[in-house]
Amino acid sequence: MRVVRVETTDGIRAGRIEAGPDGDVVHALDPAGGGPSVLGRLDDLVLAAPCDPRTIVCIGSNYACQVAEKGRDMPVQPAMFLKAPNSVVGPGVPIQHPREVERLEYEGELAVVIGSVARCLTEENAMAHVYGFTCANDVTAHDWRADGQWSRAKSADTFCPLGPWIETEPDLGPLALATRLGDTTVQDSDTGQMIFPVPAILAWVTRWFTLHPGDVVLTGSPAGVGPMAPGDRVTVEIAGIGALSNPVALRD
Amino acid sequence: MRVVRVETTDGIRAGRIEAGPDGDVVHALDPAGGGPSVLGRLDDLVLAAPCDPRTIVCIGSNYACQVAEKGRDMPVQPAMFLKAPNSVVGPGVPIQHPREVERLEYEGELAVVIGSVARCLTEENAMAHVYGFTCANDVTAHDWRADGQWSRAKSADTFCPLGPWIETEPDLGPLALATRLGDTTVQDSDTGQMIFPVPAILAWVTRWFTLHPGDVVLTGSPAGVGPMAPGDRVTVEIAGIGALSNPVALRD
Repeated sequence: MRVVRVETTDGIRAGRIEAGPDGDVVHALDPAGGGPSVLGRLDDLVLAAPCDPRTIVCIGSNYACQVAEKGRDMPVQPAMFLKAPNSVVGPGVPIQHPREVERLEYEGELAVVIGSVARCLTEENAMAHVYGFTCANDVTAHDWRADGQWSRAKSADTFCPLGPWIETEPDLGPLALATRLGDTTVQDSDTGQMIFPVPAILAWVTRWFTLHPGDVVLTGSPAGVGPMAPGDRVTVEIAGIGALSNPVALRD
Repeated sequence: MRVVRVETTDGIRAGRIEAGPDGDVVHALDPAGGGPSVLGRLDDLVLAAPCDPRTIVCIGSNYACQVAEKGRDMPVQPAMFLKAPNSVVGPGVPIQHPREVERLEYEGELAVVIGSVARCLTEENAMAHVYGFTCANDVTAHDWRADGQWSRAKSADTFCPLGPWIETEPDLGPLALATRLGDTTVQDSDTGQMIFPVPAILAWVTRWFTLHPGDVVLTGSPAGVGPMAPGDRVTVEIAGIGALSNPVALRD
């Protein structure tokens, strides 16, 4: 099932995508909640980020190709950092490039959306707590990493595009992951290159952080991270999940 | 006004504290929401954290005495990091000391609770977006700072006690801030020692992070940060606001 959150005049409503004779249609997930049971044709709707996380835990240096590219040592444990909820935006929403930032980078990533309260998971039971997968862009102000802690570099407003939807029944084999800047492919890898696979990440994170439904874990970005500029459009596409596309705009 | 959040059989309800002939009484903030308009005597109630933040931004190295104690250079801009919402607990809730951590530290701090959507504030208008102040303990696993990013060191479950209530009309002059381990005072300073005062912090943070009602900004800890052990009780007291007290327990 593919689950979206749709901007409507009554606020955000969750829906599932179903194929129709005239293209994909979004049906309300909770029609008993009032309002129409069909929210509209997918192409006609404005999608919000597909979940509304309170906690966003990110794993750095998790692709062998990226670690090799940077000349770093292989990590012995997952490297964690946080993004704040104010950074989340949906597909199509402009990534705001602060004027003060010289180098703003895209990082295409697989995002895991938590489905049930997750604490002290094991690698064996971790996937039972996953609601589904979506695409993420772990936008990073490269110069602001000099702050030491990466909060500003990683969590400024609009620095966490998510979407376009949550695939709740993904293929669990390696998924091709590509990032495009305009029409140019700039990251081209697959999730089989992860050093710590999703169950290992979830066991590590939930040893310390209790996660709740809708929380998100970003799983690291492959080689090819690079800069984007106002006027660019950046797309993160994961096979079997979808393509998350956002323009880049100069921040006011 | 002092605002609390109370654990009730119907979930958490917000209330205000009023003096009564037999001691302080908590009145429901929203009696129209149903249920009794008096929630009970303050001493009989179990208090939750007084707000439910999504974003918790923290400022490091913000007391001149602490910077001098550590032999660091004076910061030229506020140093930011994040705590995740899973770290928040209320007064009285045990701080869980992980077995894997050698040195778990208390850091008594003034916490600012946001009252209205706050983006690109100025030092002049910042205080108009503040709902009130409470006490915080920025619990830190000192050894885990070696992770590089402080997410695990600062944001494990129970690492952000808040409370006991929000004072919405605080004295804006320097407030005495003391931390006690049992009966021993281990931090003894006042908020006038801040390098970046609250309006400057809010202007800096909201330049990048849009904050929402209930979000929290921790303003740094004075000299005297030190270790606590299972069996200890740590109390952060700020004059005119209140005293936040939590025991320390060995985590399962």
